[in-house]
Amino acid sequence: MNPHLAAVPLDKAYRLLNHGPTVLVSARHLGVDNVMSASWACVLDFLPPKLTVVLDKMTFTRQLVEHSGWFVIQVPTVAQLEMTHQLGHHSLSTEPDKLIRSGVQLFEMPDLDLPFVTGCSAWLACRVLEEPGNQEKFDLFIGEVVAAWADTRIFSDGHWHFESADPQWRSLHYIAGGHFYAIGDAKDADQRSSRAHPSQ
Amino acid sequence: MNPHLAAVPLDKAYRLLNHGPTVLVSARHLGVDNVMSASWACVLDFLPPKLTVVLDKMTFTRQLVEHSGWFVIQVPTVAQLEMTHQLGHHSLSTEPDKLIRSGVQLFEMPDLDLPFVTGCSAWLACRVLEEPGNQEKFDLFIGEVVAAWADTRIFSDGHWHFESADPQWRSLHYIAGGHFYAIGDAKDADQRSSRAHPSQ
Repeated sequence: MNPHLAAVPLDKAYRLLNHGPTVLVSARHLGVDNVMSASWACVLDFLPPKLTVVLDKMTFTRQLVEHSGWFVIQVPTVAQLEMTHQLGHHSLSTEPDKLIRSGVQLFEMPDLDLPFVTGCSAWLACRVLEEPGNQEKFDLFIGEVVAAWADTRIFSDGHWHFESADPQWRSLHYIAGGHFYAIGDAKDADQRSSRAHPSQ
Repeated sequence: MNPHLAAVPLDKAYRLLNHGPTVLVSARHLGVDNVMSASWACVLDFLPPKLTVVLDKMTFTRQLVEHSGWFVIQVPTVAQLEMTHQLGHHSLSTEPDKLIRSGVQLFEMPDLDLPFVTGCSAWLACRVLEEPGNQEKFDLFIGEVVAAWADTRIFSDGHWHFESADPQWRSLHYIAGGHFYAIGDAKDADQRSSRAHPSQ
């Protein structure tokens, strides 16, 4: 077990995805594990935390999610650039050794029968909120986050530390054609001009 | 009219949002315009391009979107940091001069009765695909992108130029409490190891 892994309170879990990183989606069914990369994952609600993720009908991972009703969203790092790209461009359907070839190592968490990818910065274990219409029509899956964790070397006390940590920990943001951007510099707005106000 | 504004082909429009930036949502109904910032916007499909955006029931902008059936998603820049933050923390409901106070300038596009925010890097004009269940239950709106544009100083020929343009053009990625990150360095995966393969 990674000694730097710490639980993230559910009311702070949205912060793990709020900046729009490319993610890895992992799932398990009947002992079969798979991991795919996905750019189209997004926070849906604060508490209980929910998220959306688009899973194309051709993906093997989607089958595992549909059968098990569970998945993990995890945030890969710059150090995992090649792995992240390969996981989005090879299929377990035709390459049974996809995970090994991509360099994926999995670990387990107590009481959850789910595969977690080693070396990521954050993990969100999700239960599918069944929405057959969204799944069929838009390939859109909604998950409720039941538990979240982060590596304290890059996220702790509810905050990312991209500005002070090793750049290899930065999140990846995919565009197309193997071209990603890492997350960059911190920019803080003037707090004097703002108030907490949800009704924009 | 901004002489650097150019249409983005619809099959490339997803690239404007694929890296997960914080966006501005603008809408108009009966001559009333509003703009709000939103972290929870995401690509939903390539072609025809679709996207999702979460619009809380308390937001004034949501009322305009529900009544008009249209909205614009635009990508603000580091140069617009304070404006972006203010647009997420003040409401037109209680502050009729919100847009002026936030420093928003609007412009028009031909044949579209929609407000576009000056100075952004990209704009996506969207028609609401009515999904009453998603809107009511999850505050989730699905839009079909009917036209897209970008400022050619930062996006042209289907590609962002964050690595070579002035850093003031970088996209913003919000976390919480006035704390944003700008998008950072380019990272390119090894293309030799990948093939176009959608079935992950």
